[in-house]
Amino acid sequence: MNFLEERISKDGLVRPGNVLKVDSFLNHQMDVQLMDQIGEEFHRRFAHKPINKILTIEASGIAIACSVARCFGVPMVFAKKSKSVNIDGDMYVAQVESFTHKTTNQVIVSKQFLGPEDHVLIVDDFLANGCALQGLISIVESAGATVEGLGIAIEKGFQQGGNLIRSLGYPLESLAIVDAMDPETGTVHFRPQN
Amino acid sequence: MNFLEERISKDGLVRPGNVLKVDSFLNHQMDVQLMDQIGEEFHRRFAHKPINKILTIEASGIAIACSVARCFGVPMVFAKKSKSVNIDGDMYVAQVESFTHKTTNQVIVSKQFLGPEDHVLIVDDFLANGCALQGLISIVESAGATVEGLGIAIEKGFQQGGNLIRSLGYPLESLAIVDAMDPETGTVHFRPQN
Repeated sequence: MNFLEERISKDGLVRPGNVLKVDSFLNHQMDVQLMDQIGEEFHRRFAHKPINKILTIEASGIAIACSVARCFGVPMVFAKKSKSVNIDGDMYVAQVESFTHKTTNQVIVSKQFLGPEDHVLIVDDFLANGCALQGLISIVESAGATVEGLGIAIEKGFQQGGNLIRSLGYPLESLAIVDAMDPETGTVHFRPQN
Repeated sequence: MNFLEERISKDGLVRPGNVLKVDSFLNHQMDVQLMDQIGEEFHRRFAHKPINKILTIEASGIAIACSVARCFGVPMVFAKKSKSVNIDGDMYVAQVESFTHKTTNQVIVSKQFLGPEDHVLIVDDFLANGCALQGLISIVESAGATVEGLGIAIEKGFQQGGNLIRSLGYPLESLAIVDAMDPETGTVHFRPQN
């Protein structure tokens, strides 16, 4: 097991309905050292790509994206989930369904911060049905920018998102792929990866 | 001028209606080096306090809070703006009005992550009317924890929040206090601080 799989096994909680709670270290309370390990690992996996920008979506993706951006020495941009009165002018927009909140959000990125010159690494904490990632991919491509890769902390391998995005040809790296969970025993089964 | 005032003067945009846009470096696209400078400065100002947790509110506070938490070597917790199905059990709740979005949100923190043993530094990117900070203070005090201080990147000094929170006796440090802005010339006037 890698460092993230070990941490999930130790501190993650399995709840009925295929819910994996990692809010003591990843998406409510945050272990910044773990974020930095995640950042370093994505940097290691994508260091050969000409990445000049990190893109994520609010809220819990922001911490990981900051750690990744620090490793690459590039800015990070986070997509916002609703139109803010403080955002000027033209924006890229995508519709994103939230698995967690059972809602559909409009996701926006200002056109100032993404353009054809950008080589983007998209990162997020979770991948389930892939709607958030597809929204971010669509925004990068609307900008004429290049998706150089996608880095996910935890992929729910029993949902369709990962397979869908890989089948479209995008380089997707998930640090931990959960193939099954048992709420009775609390056991998490990870997909073997090299 | 300190490093943040200089950056605001260089890259901030003044818009009619007392809007200061800093979304090229602080709250949409993020300069992670700047976040780290902010983190180090809050660490310098609050290093004499027994701080064991950093608290912020999603979304743009998360980046600053991560940098601050790294400097203190403690976890950070971000308050969430709506009830998530992925949050277990009991939560501390506060009502917070958003100046930016003209809405009222329920802000929540899981009771697992704040308790009487905690000495909390609250941080956020902006302080205007103070509603977000008052919500976070109320959550810390509901938990029986101690508010050791509040660290804000940019305070709008012409709005009431800063004065209100200082008058209640909380140690509030704002790295840049904007006393006035001129949308005609783009000039930002900062309050002199020691």
